[in-house]
Amino acid sequence: MRISYLGPPGTHTESAAIEYDPNAQLMPYATVQGAVSAVERDEADLAICAIENALEGAVIETLIILQNEILSVNITAEIVIPIKHALVGIPGQSLEKIATVHSHPQALAQCRESLVSLVPNAKPVAALSTAAAIDSASQNPNTLAIGNIRAASPRSLHVYNSDISDNKNNQTRFIALGKNTTHPTGDDKTSLVFTMAYDMPGSLVDVLSPFAQRKINLSKIESRPTRQQLGTYYFFVDIHGHRDDVVITDAIKEAQPKTQWLNILGSYPRWNYQTL
Amino acid sequence: MRISYLGPPGTHTESAAIEYDPNAQLMPYATVQGAVSAVERDEADLAICAIENALEGAVIETLIILQNEILSVNITAEIVIPIKHALVGIPGQSLEKIATVHSHPQALAQCRESLVSLVPNAKPVAALSTAAAIDSASQNPNTLAIGNIRAASPRSLHVYNSDISDNKNNQTRFIALGKNTTHPTGDDKTSLVFTMAYDMPGSLVDVLSPFAQRKINLSKIESRPTRQQLGTYYFFVDIHGHRDDVVITDAIKEAQPKTQWLNILGSYPRWNYQTL
Repeated sequence: MRISYLGPPGTHTESAAIEYDPNAQLMPYATVQGAVSAVERDEADLAICAIENALEGAVIETLIILQNEILSVNITAEIVIPIKHALVGIPGQSLEKIATVHSHPQALAQCRESLVSLVPNAKPVAALSTAAAIDSASQNPNTLAIGNIRAASPRSLHVYNSDISDNKNNQTRFIALGKNTTHPTGDDKTSLVFTMAYDMPGSLVDVLSPFAQRKINLSKIESRPTRQQLGTYYFFVDIHGHRDDVVITDAIKEAQPKTQWLNILGSYPRWNYQTL
Repeated sequence: MRISYLGPPGTHTESAAIEYDPNAQLMPYATVQGAVSAVERDEADLAICAIENALEGAVIETLIILQNEILSVNITAEIVIPIKHALVGIPGQSLEKIATVHSHPQALAQCRESLVSLVPNAKPVAALSTAAAIDSASQNPNTLAIGNIRAASPRSLHVYNSDISDNKNNQTRFIALGKNTTHPTGDDKTSLVFTMAYDMPGSLVDVLSPFAQRKINLSKIESRPTRQQLGTYYFFVDIHGHRDDVVITDAIKEAQPKTQWLNILGSYPRWNYQTL
């Protein structure tokens, strides 16, 4: 199994790929789109992409890929992993003397309160990725970085704290994108994306009603701007059930004509949250 | 009129405040929460806050404030302004020799393609804000920054390009938060926020149906993670009409018991997009 993912090695996406298949051949790419294109070109079997974080919400880069009307891959699995932000740097430093902490602005924001108490004299410095921040910290004394703990040991860095997130409920949901489709397991999810005509009264309700009438669980709804006009959206909806289940097939058949465009992104086994 | 906003001077939020009232006394704060708290403490009359960008979607910091169950301010206006990303720096530089372009990662991402063609040898460098990036560019040769054109002239910087955004449809919607309430104008919007019990079949449809049945336009729906558990959301909904209109009052009264918690964030005149 060849799995493509957003690199470099040491990212949370790599952790999700290993969780999915510990024996897979891991293929890092510079962008999420690059990882997905590798599957489209048959260079990889599956792309693992972050889709939703419990604190920050949707991962925009992945949703933009799923909006594509000629997407040649579909969702075949979901993976949920806990996200921990480790504080790492050159060994032997005193936390009081740390002058700067490097990380991606999102990670800095998620650790703001912990940073004030742990490294009171440090100034936050923005980096393009947590991996780039860890590289900076590995080259500079009086500097630490916030990132994935797995990136510390290959660079011989010390882990000053294994999780400094302000909110410990942090998890990220990933999807696997591939060319195969799955069979129903009895506990599946189906992901849909659709657009609607602008500003129509009740139109979103018209699309969702066929699912509600059949008591189909709606586990997620997410709206994303179309980037054409403020106020026009792509809607991403996850429902409980498999696209091959008759009740789901019927509901989608009834909902589709009420949208401008609807695409079934895939059906896949529901993640068992008990395993966390 | 005293208007608080996310500073420093020169941000897009300041442009929105000036658009709202060119004669207002402008009061910059370090965070969106700081600007809103100033209104809560009566140090300012209105806080102007970005809520939605046409390319990036919701502004999370503002939505988190609106999720607060004991919010003592309400939305009294909306303002929409075009967003332009200017490329600025010390005058007299050759674009081929620019080595670094500084900006917030979001602004760098929104200008990625233009940067490759305009400053082919430049490396992107992350900053904590566009204002901080412009400060760096004002002190360093061979460096440019991406930011608001209004921040260039007080620092005697040259504007190398007034808008290098890859997508020229970029706009941001702002809201004004204050203690007064508005009267119906005949063309108003009302913003609501609500939560629901986890993973209930059809529950979102139940909440939206009272509006659909009355042909009330739904101009926006946005879900944000509650940060408690992956898969639980705050829903932000904008409807067409004023909370004092009988039809709106009735619809909200019918919808409220179907939610776990519902708050009316305010009613305010709808922005006239023709003015852009």
